[in-house]
Amino acid sequence: MRGAGAIVAEDSIWHGGDLATARALFPDAPGPWIDLSTGINPIPYPLPELPLSLWTRLPGADDEAALIAAARAAYRVPDHVGIVAAPGTQILIELLPRLAPSGPVAILGPTYAEHGHAWRKAGFAVAEAAALEEAATIVVVNPNNPDGRALSRAELADLAALCAARGGLLVVDEAFADFTPETSTVPELPPGAIVLRSFGKTYGLAGLRLGFAIGAAELMARLKAALGPWSVAGPALHVGAQALADAEWLVSAGRERARDAARLDALLAPHGRILGGTSLFRLLETPAAAALFTRLGRHGIYVRRFQNAPDRLRFGLPGDAAGWSRLQTALTVDAREASASA
Amino acid sequence: MRGAGAIVAEDSIWHGGDLATARALFPDAPGPWIDLSTGINPIPYPLPELPLSLWTRLPGADDEAALIAAARAAYRVPDHVGIVAAPGTQILIELLPRLAPSGPVAILGPTYAEHGHAWRKAGFAVAEAAALEEAATIVVVNPNNPDGRALSRAELADLAALCAARGGLLVVDEAFADFTPETSTVPELPPGAIVLRSFGKTYGLAGLRLGFAIGAAELMARLKAALGPWSVAGPALHVGAQALADAEWLVSAGRERARDAARLDALLAPHGRILGGTSLFRLLETPAAAALFTRLGRHGIYVRRFQNAPDRLRFGLPGDAAGWSRLQTALTVDAREASASA
Repeated sequence: MRGAGAIVAEDSIWHGGDLATARALFPDAPGPWIDLSTGINPIPYPLPELPLSLWTRLPGADDEAALIAAARAAYRVPDHVGIVAAPGTQILIELLPRLAPSGPVAILGPTYAEHGHAWRKAGFAVAEAAALEEAATIVVVNPNNPDGRALSRAELADLAALCAARGGLLVVDEAFADFTPETSTVPELPPGAIVLRSFGKTYGLAGLRLGFAIGAAELMARLKAALGPWSVAGPALHVGAQALADAEWLVSAGRERARDAARLDALLAPHGRILGGTSLFRLLETPAAAALFTRLGRHGIYVRRFQNAPDRLRFGLPGDAAGWSRLQTALTVDAREASASA
Repeated sequence: MRGAGAIVAEDSIWHGGDLATARALFPDAPGPWIDLSTGINPIPYPLPELPLSLWTRLPGADDEAALIAAARAAYRVPDHVGIVAAPGTQILIELLPRLAPSGPVAILGPTYAEHGHAWRKAGFAVAEAAALEEAATIVVVNPNNPDGRALSRAELADLAALCAARGGLLVVDEAFADFTPETSTVPELPPGAIVLRSFGKTYGLAGLRLGFAIGAAELMARLKAALGPWSVAGPALHVGAQALADAEWLVSAGRERARDAARLDALLAPHGRILGGTSLFRLLETPAAAALFTRLGRHGIYVRRFQNAPDRLRFGLPGDAAGWSRLQTALTVDAREASASA
């Protein structure tokens, strides 16, 4: 593990999905790699036919309007609230600091590291802590990545009121709320709150780049101006509009992933304590996390480790029978090896 | 024309490619619409097979490295110079004001309006004039859109030195330089200059969203940080890498479009004075521009008019025999009508 850590530069943020790092860490692992390091649905929404004009023409106002209408319905955005589409949620995270005055920022952590990074880059004082006494702006990932902790709508409304009173913003990143719409604060959005929604994770199409911000119309107009015209690609507008209108697929995929998550919990239970997660990923706590990361890596299975929590690993869902089988084998064999050598 | 103008909001920037406006202006025009309102190559680069993983996975560091390598070679970027990819040049135009101190900005106009708009939004004093006496930052579209005016490398180097001495930047938008690589200032990039390159226009894939900034490594690192990770979609990384490596296609397409541009000039010559352009668009000046716009619109042909130059129209290239034929008919019939009624 010492060598493994050194491959990633000290000042970089670790992300899931970076198989080049996996290959560098475990050059002798059997292929193909099973990437469980992300929270992306391994069973993607079926790609529709993509007319050539989506590629050749500048994205049209009609296409964007169709996407926004589908997103408004899917996320249950109240009529008076604004919504803006972007090429992925990440660019919105980068732009949010422009909307806030310069008060201190609290990130309810530990969570997705890009939030704190974006505010720090913009010159804000950022604390990753549950201590909110002084914060003007508060960032909450809800349900949280990686542990699945969810605040209630009432708790979020209280935080939003606190931020509004201090002249700041409440940012609620609902990247993993699609399968649990009852956790979303969008339908009763408190004043001063901005919600982020990601398309690529639930729909298994992270390469498409599509995300949304939802909040006061005036703030959303400023975000849209910062992005400029044509920020979302033609194919993303088309696929997003179709997928977000497909309520049946969402319900069915949610049911199937919940079943997969339960199956994953059963496999992981002998190896430590499951701290939580969502139906797209599970968080395992064990003093043997580093060793388990290495053993899985040697089997060609890449899971997510954490710079600041070396006793935790996050597992995404295998996407097919071969993936489940290799994960089960790796966990079982290694458990036997571990108990034999203990 | 009075009614036609009113359909577009007074404070909005007119762009080509907005067929919804064309349809609203000329609801009775015969379809399908022929869109000559942009400078996008009507014969796109052939889309390669797109593996599903480009859509499902987060864009990988390998894929981005392959695109950047192809772009470095295609644009002949010197080794010590930085380059950053983005989901279209537009978002780079929006971000450039972050790289400059607050000195006054001069846009060598008239030109693409989004440049001035982005700097004004960021709080800069902007003059669209050739008077550069006081400017710290100068923006040049080269060759220019819509008139094709091109500054020499020596002239650009002088401007860059002027900007550098005043603590500003020279921004050279080479959106239309692909077919005339001898006009590009990238291979001998002067210190303090930033060049923008667009992928979608030359390659006829504007819906893909891909553009580049080229400049001092430190400035490019700041742009990249402002965009955050995964800003370019997986399919765009893949198509861009393949197309930019295809030097043969570029030469052949450049030859064919130059032939098309000459054919267009011959059709337009009886209607006014051709002020210039590139091999993807031609600029016509005539006192009858407004009437010609309306006549073409009634034939289902949409060309680009200009808020600040009512005697000019920009024509893109028809993409097929039917398009050429309809344009020729509309121009000929209307010429006869015009001379009959004169």
